[in-house]
Amino acid sequence: MSAESDETGRQPVELARVPVGRVVVDTVTSAEDAVAVEEPLEIRLGFDEDGKRIAKTISITMRTPGHDFELACGFLFSEAILRDPGDIESIYHCGKPSAPGLPPNVVRVDMQHGVAVDYKRLERHFYMSSSCGVCGKASIEALRIDPTYAPGSGPTVRPSLIDGLPAKLREAQSVFESTGGLHAAALFDQTGTRLAVREDVGRHNAVDKLIGWAFREGRLPLRDHIVMVSGRASFELVQKATMAGVPILAAVSAPSSLAIDLAHSNNMTLLGFVRDGRFNIYSGNSRIDVS
Amino acid sequence: MSAESDETGRQPVELARVPVGRVVVDTVTSAEDAVAVEEPLEIRLGFDEDGKRIAKTISITMRTPGHDFELACGFLFSEAILRDPGDIESIYHCGKPSAPGLPPNVVRVDMQHGVAVDYKRLERHFYMSSSCGVCGKASIEALRIDPTYAPGSGPTVRPSLIDGLPAKLREAQSVFESTGGLHAAALFDQTGTRLAVREDVGRHNAVDKLIGWAFREGRLPLRDHIVMVSGRASFELVQKATMAGVPILAAVSAPSSLAIDLAHSNNMTLLGFVRDGRFNIYSGNSRIDVS
Repeated sequence: MSAESDETGRQPVELARVPVGRVVVDTVTSAEDAVAVEEPLEIRLGFDEDGKRIAKTISITMRTPGHDFELACGFLFSEAILRDPGDIESIYHCGKPSAPGLPPNVVRVDMQHGVAVDYKRLERHFYMSSSCGVCGKASIEALRIDPTYAPGSGPTVRPSLIDGLPAKLREAQSVFESTGGLHAAALFDQTGTRLAVREDVGRHNAVDKLIGWAFREGRLPLRDHIVMVSGRASFELVQKATMAGVPILAAVSAPSSLAIDLAHSNNMTLLGFVRDGRFNIYSGNSRIDVS
Repeated sequence: MSAESDETGRQPVELARVPVGRVVVDTVTSAEDAVAVEEPLEIRLGFDEDGKRIAKTISITMRTPGHDFELACGFLFSEAILRDPGDIESIYHCGKPSAPGLPPNVVRVDMQHGVAVDYKRLERHFYMSSSCGVCGKASIEALRIDPTYAPGSGPTVRPSLIDGLPAKLREAQSVFESTGGLHAAALFDQTGTRLAVREDVGRHNAVDKLIGWAFREGRLPLRDHIVMVSGRASFELVQKATMAGVPILAAVSAPSSLAIDLAHSNNMTLLGFVRDGRFNIYSGNSRIDVS
């Protein structure tokens, strides 16, 4: 396994080279294939309780190594645990890598002393749940998080700007082309300029990495921005985008019913099937200027 | 929202009709679109502790309604909480539906009195974790579950049989064609006969529903069977297939590095990019007969 460099300014995603038998009709040819690396990431939160520093595991997710600190920050921000980059005292990897060239699979985020963490609320949210794709809530009522930064009214964009996003997403995807195994999420400003792209085996992780990047850069809320994702739009992705104040979420593929409901409630523009020079508006028509 | 009937023997998946603006160049046309329904499902386990019946929430997942009992059983079986259909006293929906025509979003599974549930182990597995796609483990060590039924040595199949699976999966997918928003998983016997297909917004749920069907039918372990999934093959899907004893897992798209590692450790044949009359063998070559 080898870590790609970040010299291009793109994300340092990880690829593994594996032996493969390619079968066409009744013939097997031995070859080498590039596959996306998938490894667990445990996010531990350090905070003060009764004057003592304690650490708790908040989340375990299967992720593609690279941009782990952004992933941790984006996840904790999406869950309303982190509010501001200044809340963090330090963030670091713990433990040993599971393979040479990979980072360790534990990230610890230590909160500044004096920053309150409502651990009882965390327990209510995460206790005894499993949840794939909804980040372990202890009850269905806990699924909807009050957004720190709900989308505002702007911006308004032309359809041609939206039509141009898929190509910009694809040209920045460093690993998808070689593995076919990664989801991507990209952040654009309201002129369609690409600001960042992140990739991961999990679509929620790609969005967490993107939001975590903006969080660490002090760019939140993203009230004049567009997020584009390579696959489908689920409830969870709308939730994460809402938390970051994103007004326009565009997906290459289909949205789900609950994603549309949540986008409506949160005044978000949700676009689906954005490809081949056309797209569908599922909510928030007013931000698409067809005059 | 309307529930599709199950008269065809296919899964009763759910579709929602939503208004949509279709944008082509600078023109918006109002239309109606079919989207896959996504709703949370809370799985509650009822069991005896110190002579009293208690109930605990084990999991919350975002799922497409339909086959909820199979989903609950498949999930609990994959997590090694349920072993045998005879362990279950009753299984039923609780609460009110969130919309007319939909089932309630809570399924309760009551264990037979006297069937032991190691709740301490569950707590260790699920406590304070979130995990998207790995079902909420409290530590990375807990990710790997001892399989109840590991794959055996058989069967051996011809490449032409594998080549024929994608078409059989597609022809059984009732909702994907109309929404583009669902993952599918299908179970085949060693002659390539399709036994069951399940669809869901979450790929892990589609596999849980499939395994849950086999569990309730008393068909486990699936030692002579093939599971085909419509998307990528992740660690989690290999884990679930292993638990059910499935010897061959075929995916339309790419596997991840950890999926391949786990397939190797568990003596499973993992096939990727199964489409257009060709495929790649990532592990377990011996089950593909190219003589």
